[in-house]
Amino acid sequence: MNETVTSTLPVQDARIYPRGGLDVLSRTEVARLRDASSGGMHDLLRRCALAVLTSGSANDDPRAARDLYPNFDIQVAQQDRGVRIDLKGAPAMAFVDGEIIRGVAELLFAVVRDLAWTAIELGPEYATDLESSSGITDAVFGVLRNARVLRPADPNLVVCWGGHSISREEYIYTKQVGYELGLRGLDICTGCGPGAMKGPMKGATIAHAKQRKRTNRYIGITEPGIIAAESPNPIVNELVIMPDIEKRLEAFVRLAHGIIVFPGGVGTAEEILYLLGILLREENADLPFPLILTGPTIAAPYFEQIDRFLRLTLGEAATSRYEIVIGDPAAVAKKMTAGIRKVRAARLEHKDSFYFNWGIDIPLAFQQPFEPTHQAMAALDLHHGRPPSALAADLRRAFSGIVAGNVKEDGIRQIEANGPFEIHGAPDMMQALDGLLRAFVEQRRMKIAGHYRPCYRVVA
Amino acid sequence: MNETVTSTLPVQDARIYPRGGLDVLSRTEVARLRDASSGGMHDLLRRCALAVLTSGSANDDPRAARDLYPNFDIQVAQQDRGVRIDLKGAPAMAFVDGEIIRGVAELLFAVVRDLAWTAIELGPEYATDLESSSGITDAVFGVLRNARVLRPADPNLVVCWGGHSISREEYIYTKQVGYELGLRGLDICTGCGPGAMKGPMKGATIAHAKQRKRTNRYIGITEPGIIAAESPNPIVNELVIMPDIEKRLEAFVRLAHGIIVFPGGVGTAEEILYLLGILLREENADLPFPLILTGPTIAAPYFEQIDRFLRLTLGEAATSRYEIVIGDPAAVAKKMTAGIRKVRAARLEHKDSFYFNWGIDIPLAFQQPFEPTHQAMAALDLHHGRPPSALAADLRRAFSGIVAGNVKEDGIRQIEANGPFEIHGAPDMMQALDGLLRAFVEQRRMKIAGHYRPCYRVVA
Amino acid sequence: MNETVTSTLPVQDARIYPRGGLDVLSRTEVARLRDASSGGMHDLLRRCALAVLTSGSANDDPRAARDLYPNFDIQVAQQDRGVRIDLKGAPAMAFVDGEIIRGVAELLFAVVRDLAWTAIELGPEYATDLESSSGITDAVFGVLRNARVLRPADPNLVVCWGGHSISREEYIYTKQVGYELGLRGLDICTGCGPGAMKGPMKGATIAHAKQRKRTNRYIGITEPGIIAAESPNPIVNELVIMPDIEKRLEAFVRLAHGIIVFPGGVGTAEEILYLLGILLREENADLPFPLILTGPTIAAPYFEQIDRFLRLTLGEAATSRYEIVIGDPAAVAKKMTAGIRKVRAARLEHKDSFYFNWGIDIPLAFQQPFEPTHQAMAALDLHHGRPPSALAADLRRAFSGIVAGNVKEDGIRQIEANGPFEIHGAPDMMQALDGLLRAFVEQRRMKIAGHYRPCYRVVA
Amino acid sequence: MNETVTSTLPVQDARIYPRGGLDVLSRTEVARLRDASSGGMHDLLRRCALAVLTSGSANDDPRAARDLYPNFDIQVAQQDRGVRIDLKGAPAMAFVDGEIIRGVAELLFAVVRDLAWTAIELGPEYATDLESSSGITDAVFGVLRNARVLRPADPNLVVCWGGHSISREEYIYTKQVGYELGLRGLDICTGCGPGAMKGPMKGATIAHAKQRKRTNRYIGITEPGIIAAESPNPIVNELVIMPDIEKRLEAFVRLAHGIIVFPGGVGTAEEILYLLGILLREENADLPFPLILTGPTIAAPYFEQIDRFLRLTLGEAATSRYEIVIGDPAAVAKKMTAGIRKVRAARLEHKDSFYFNWGIDIPLAFQQPFEPTHQAMAALDLHHGRPPSALAADLRRAFSGIVAGNVKEDGIRQIEANGPFEIHGAPDMMQALDGLLRAFVEQRRMKIAGHYRPCYRVVA
Repeated sequence: MNETVTSTLPVQDARIYPRGGLDVLSRTEVARLRDASSGGMHDLLRRCALAVLTSGSANDDPRAARDLYPNFDIQVAQQDRGVRIDLKGAPAMAFVDGEIIRGVAELLFAVVRDLAWTAIELGPEYATDLESSSGITDAVFGVLRNARVLRPADPNLVVCWGGHSISREEYIYTKQVGYELGLRGLDICTGCGPGAMKGPMKGATIAHAKQRKRTNRYIGITEPGIIAAESPNPIVNELVIMPDIEKRLEAFVRLAHGIIVFPGGVGTAEEILYLLGILLREENADLPFPLILTGPTIAAPYFEQIDRFLRLTLGEAATSRYEIVIGDPAAVAKKMTAGIRKVRAARLEHKDSFYFNWGIDIPLAFQQPFEPTHQAMAALDLHHGRPPSALAADLRRAFSGIVAGNVKEDGIRQIEANGPFEIHGAPDMMQALDGLLRAFVEQRRMKIAGHYRPCYRVVA
Repeated sequence: MNETVTSTLPVQDARIYPRGGLDVLSRTEVARLRDASSGGMHDLLRRCALAVLTSGSANDDPRAARDLYPNFDIQVAQQDRGVRIDLKGAPAMAFVDGEIIRGVAELLFAVVRDLAWTAIELGPEYATDLESSSGITDAVFGVLRNARVLRPADPNLVVCWGGHSISREEYIYTKQVGYELGLRGLDICTGCGPGAMKGPMKGATIAHAKQRKRTNRYIGITEPGIIAAESPNPIVNELVIMPDIEKRLEAFVRLAHGIIVFPGGVGTAEEILYLLGILLREENADLPFPLILTGPTIAAPYFEQIDRFLRLTLGEAATSRYEIVIGDPAAVAKKMTAGIRKVRAARLEHKDSFYFNWGIDIPLAFQQPFEPTHQAMAALDLHHGRPPSALAADLRRAFSGIVAGNVKEDGIRQIEANGPFEIHGAPDMMQALDGLLRAFVEQRRMKIAGHYRPCYRVVA
Repeated sequence: MNETVTSTLPVQDARIYPRGGLDVLSRTEVARLRDASSGGMHDLLRRCALAVLTSGSANDDPRAARDLYPNFDIQVAQQDRGVRIDLKGAPAMAFVDGEIIRGVAELLFAVVRDLAWTAIELGPEYATDLESSSGITDAVFGVLRNARVLRPADPNLVVCWGGHSISREEYIYTKQVGYELGLRGLDICTGCGPGAMKGPMKGATIAHAKQRKRTNRYIGITEPGIIAAESPNPIVNELVIMPDIEKRLEAFVRLAHGIIVFPGGVGTAEEILYLLGILLREENADLPFPLILTGPTIAAPYFEQIDRFLRLTLGEAATSRYEIVIGDPAAVAKKMTAGIRKVRAARLEHKDSFYFNWGIDIPLAFQQPFEPTHQAMAALDLHHGRPPSALAADLRRAFSGIVAGNVKEDGIRQIEANGPFEIHGAPDMMQALDGLLRAFVEQRRMKIAGHYRPCYRVVA
Repeated sequence: MNETVTSTLPVQDARIYPRGGLDVLSRTEVARLRDASSGGMHDLLRRCALAVLTSGSANDDPRAARDLYPNFDIQVAQQDRGVRIDLKGAPAMAFVDGEIIRGVAELLFAVVRDLAWTAIELGPEYATDLESSSGITDAVFGVLRNARVLRPADPNLVVCWGGHSISREEYIYTKQVGYELGLRGLDICTGCGPGAMKGPMKGATIAHAKQRKRTNRYIGITEPGIIAAESPNPIVNELVIMPDIEKRLEAFVRLAHGIIVFPGGVGTAEEILYLLGILLREENADLPFPLILTGPTIAAPYFEQIDRFLRLTLGEAATSRYEIVIGDPAAVAKKMTAGIRKVRAARLEHKDSFYFNWGIDIPLAFQQPFEPTHQAMAALDLHHGRPPSALAADLRRAFSGIVAGNVKEDGIRQIEANGPFEIHGAPDMMQALDGLLRAFVEQRRMKIAGHYRPCYRVVA
């Protein structure tokens, strides 16, 4: 191992021999993996690997990392005995006295493992059925099983959602909730970045140590686009890279024994609508699924606004599916523990597995991406009287499109070119939507340049 | 669980929920498994399951078991959460106070797992390439990996071959060798039946306990035809059912870090020729592979005869590949330990894995079954001057055919119908072969009705 | 390590560094241990060590071992870091390739540990109170705790008593019972010699392996006089050497969650009387204590005779404390399992520990040895109307004296010198005693030269 | 468990059944423990228990805790099965849903265990020899062994000393050093309070998690006076309460495989002199003992001053025993790793144990407390030409006395009553001492009221 000098930050070359999951491969599999990693997958692999190798650095932005380690490269080489990972110009911070830090190496193997699985098993040649709803669910299951995340243990996995850039007060609150969850023996799964994705894990770590809990799971579920922008936080000890955003969301829902939503940006609001769209389905009516929206006192307005909006649009009945708790971490953990007990009983009753929620119905529309074109936006149907589940799905899409039209480069350009989106919706519902967005802007949870100006108009 | 009364022996019905390997299945996989087990695979499954459920019974013959438990049946049922195994009229000896014995349950899951894998992954629909040598090796690897037998640990696996019905003195000797191997920390793999397949495991068990070795492997590798005739002995704690005899032999060779051959019947002699046919190949010349032929003093003539035969036919050079040790269990274990040290060094040097001998060359001819027809026998070429490997392969075939012509129903009928096989061979070689067979008859290692009469004639 | 040549059997010198229990000693403790082992304790240490080093040999008699290894010696040497054990002329069978077998080393450490503890903690200088009943119980507790035998786990320890030289049929039966106990997750504790002390452990070993039970306890409790005559069988994985016979008996009773008595010699009958003398005490009336007398069909007469004798002498009520099961190993195990469940409940109710039966009352008379002099025998009071417990105690003493007078060198000499013992007893009781002894002689369970002639006479 | 209402902070009553160490006690031991804990030891027990129950609270001062939980009480009750700990009015923060946090319970058991051991084994009745040097060392060993801190594992324990109230920058530095130590597999032992006693543990925790190190030791060693003023930080997972300050210092020195000194107050400087007084002894000359003084750049002056003082007083040779590293956590860890390698080799060579440094010579003078009376101060001999070890010892005493005369209530009163101490010392040496003290005052590491005025005068 010798140091190269082209970069200003210390770097290192290394050869790593994988363990666990990548260590028992057939020669054919090794060859395919080598081909995939040197072919179309290579750039993706390089970016994801760099994100993992800079995990825990002061600077959370892996894009900056790419500038700091311009000569970094990764190759997967074949050996009779299996695979070898060759790193060049890798960040020295991932090493101790020339040896890669074991936890970092595990995350690196996870990157190779999941990208390879996706490239090989879900690739065009080895065509798994990705058109049907059950085919997509099988693909989600396949990635998770291959990542050894599915384990037949008692239900105790809490998925935590929320923003990656939240206020210090909100961040401390997520730690406190994590601490209370950890004291009660619960494990944590998040999107694996900073902010609300890191706080609950950090709090749980301390609680798990105090409770002398030995096997702790801090599962991070990401996807190539996200990990390239957000390094996994260093607490994550099981990392899964799902093929895309929709499969990542499905993985969260099917793995979770309960979900906690912390304050976040507009993305978090969108996730709430996604989840309610599923939970309000007739098919899932009898399924217990603890869902708690929580934050410190300063976050109360955020959740009040969302709550008001949900009541107005989806009706009072929708509120039966979630609970809002403000400023009480212990209460959150107690409610979650009670909720998971019900989940456990229901899984046993329906003979469903503990480790994968086969029973919950996620229709194809939720499994496929929504592209917010003018045409797609015009096709939305935001009127009272529709089934709440269908309405929630369309609200989420409307939401997604409006956000794009306001803050995403591509969306703004579309609006400039074709004028505002035309949305068919009930006026009161549209007003509520507008109110919600304005509030987010005021609370600086949606960052726009200048004043907020709606990018749509309502068509009666 | 209620007892049924149709059989004279106590029986029991049970529902069993698999663990380990069968516990994390997708709904699609469960459905395929259910279909396979109720379709063509069902009778095979029933027979293999019964063999496992009567493991350790006084009567070693599972065929008798089928008469003793005529109402026994097994069904693999689907549940949302996975699979369930339903047993009807199962031997009560496999249960304690209504609960199945855990080790028996594990063997049962192994049966379902391996038959399912074979039916699903190697079946006609999901066609793996089973025509090429590397395709077959990949299939062998696939079955073993799915059975979780492949583990990246230090080389310590000794494969023991030998007869299932040997003399008491010979059986005690196999236990003593197993004891000495176990004292030195070695694990045992056999064909998993009685006799020389049980003795070494039994001896090793005692030694492992004395050495306080905690994770001990007693691997039994069988195939559907054999397990239906020989219950796995109760010491086996990892059971694999390979699809056929040739893949079973390849599994032995690729898993072994060394092989010990105890006295046996003609089958054992055939296995020696199979292994020498591989080891004498040019391609494997540099590969260390400890091979020890051993038995108590009374077994000396058996090995002397084989040794003489090998020298005569394959030349003195062949003897470099094996060692004969008579009546010295400790010496066998010491030589094996030293040999495995060399295997370890070679694997590291060639970057081959510890858990699967990718490096050894096994040509297609050894991977495909030999059908001893008159035509096939006439095609053999048993003359001096041929490469020892090729000659060993043909000698094994000749041997196999002659045994069939003497003792197997099908072979005897062929000889009656078409007269003796015509074999092209050097007279001295054929004489030696004849001598070997006559000796086996005398030593009662080959059981024939009446006098031994050659079923072939030599063509110059 | 070099071989010495003075003995005909292979021997070896070795230096061994203890682990577990002897590994963290203060310098003062090490010095005391060294002094004790080179002083008065040395010969005892030498004999016990040799018994352990020949454990598992064909010849069970350690006295023979002393002739076979005349030059054997053991020294405990001090080092700054702790102790070192130096062996000279030790049996080579305890070693593999120059390394001592780990299990044998553990037993050797146990010998040093327990003899040292007894010499140091119970020796005259460091006077523990060995005069009072509770002082003796504390000493028993101290030896067991120092041996790390006391562990706060669920009750599952079955003590098995019975003869060391029993018939093959009886031995096989003890294995079957051990197998059935092992299948139900029970651990075994015996006197650690051959016969009924080995069989149950052997059977349990197989059952534990089949049930995949990982932490198994095969506890052997012996004392210096016994171990010097009977090597611990090689299955024992926890060995304790109690200071004397009475403390050994108390250790059995306080460790046991249930006791099974197999057929044995007169010693076994004496142990039954010892235990009943305790169990029939008023103070122990409410204490559950499963006690099963069992053997194969051929042993039925032995237990019938004992049963008859107990009814006659102690009254029908005594039979409530034991159960006789003939020829049904599974029934024995089921009854024991049920009995231990009650023990567990009672310990919880009385807040007594699981690992040591503090609650059972053992009076001083049972903790002190009985010397069968003429005077002591004349002091016995064998009449109806006494409390059964007191009567049982005196019957045991009478029994013990009569056996001594018939078969022990010292006792026979006393009788020759002073005429028969005079025993004060009810005639029918004495007749029953006589009948029992005659039956034992007939069944060859008590070996005497010539005809049986009572060594006592009854005084009305 | 019911809540009492007398305190403003939430409290809870609880009954706790100890595990590990306190779970296998004889009845006599339980009785002694109960007596000791309700007698003279009770108030001490109460204060130490409260310190442990408020571990991790925002307010680090257990004295405040006593005001916050005025009704708190603890009783050790006897039960047949062992001991029970009864808590009344205990801080609710130590519980989750009515159950005590497991780690807190362990610390609580440690408190009871160590106070009981000291009261029983080192008390006047059961007189251990506490007059001789080796007797005191045996007592230190006894407390540590009873606390199960002594384990025969590879040397990897780094003792960290330093102040409990240090600057934020210095605290962060201690975390970074702990992180680098943890990355290299080293465990941490400190005085178990906040500041430099918490930082290294916190850093190591993160590094251990990243390196997937599973058994991590965060040992806190305290004594009754200190723990009553400083709660153990919540990372400590092994807590030992030594009987007094001198035995605590000896425990550090004999457990350590290396010592790191962070910036601290005058107490830290005193500890450096204590350690150098030992290391500079002739008897310890050949003993490797890595000693690193380190801090961030802002702490450089602190160590420079100390270094200068040591060179002036003890001579240049003294500097061979320590190394100063400024602002380079990785370098500290690398040097420590290298130093411990040498310690390991030396222990093996001298057959000393890994877990307790028997070899290092600590004379009686260092094991006995120093009372800074006028007489004792006048007896000091601070002149050049004395052996550095003896001089270091006297310097430490002078130091200790002067600090007392300046900041401790008792010392200040003595000075007021009897005038300044008279110290016999070389003028340059005394000047240096004076300079050091003035610098500490300037750096606010010694807190005095008003201006610093020497409380001694030099006698030529």
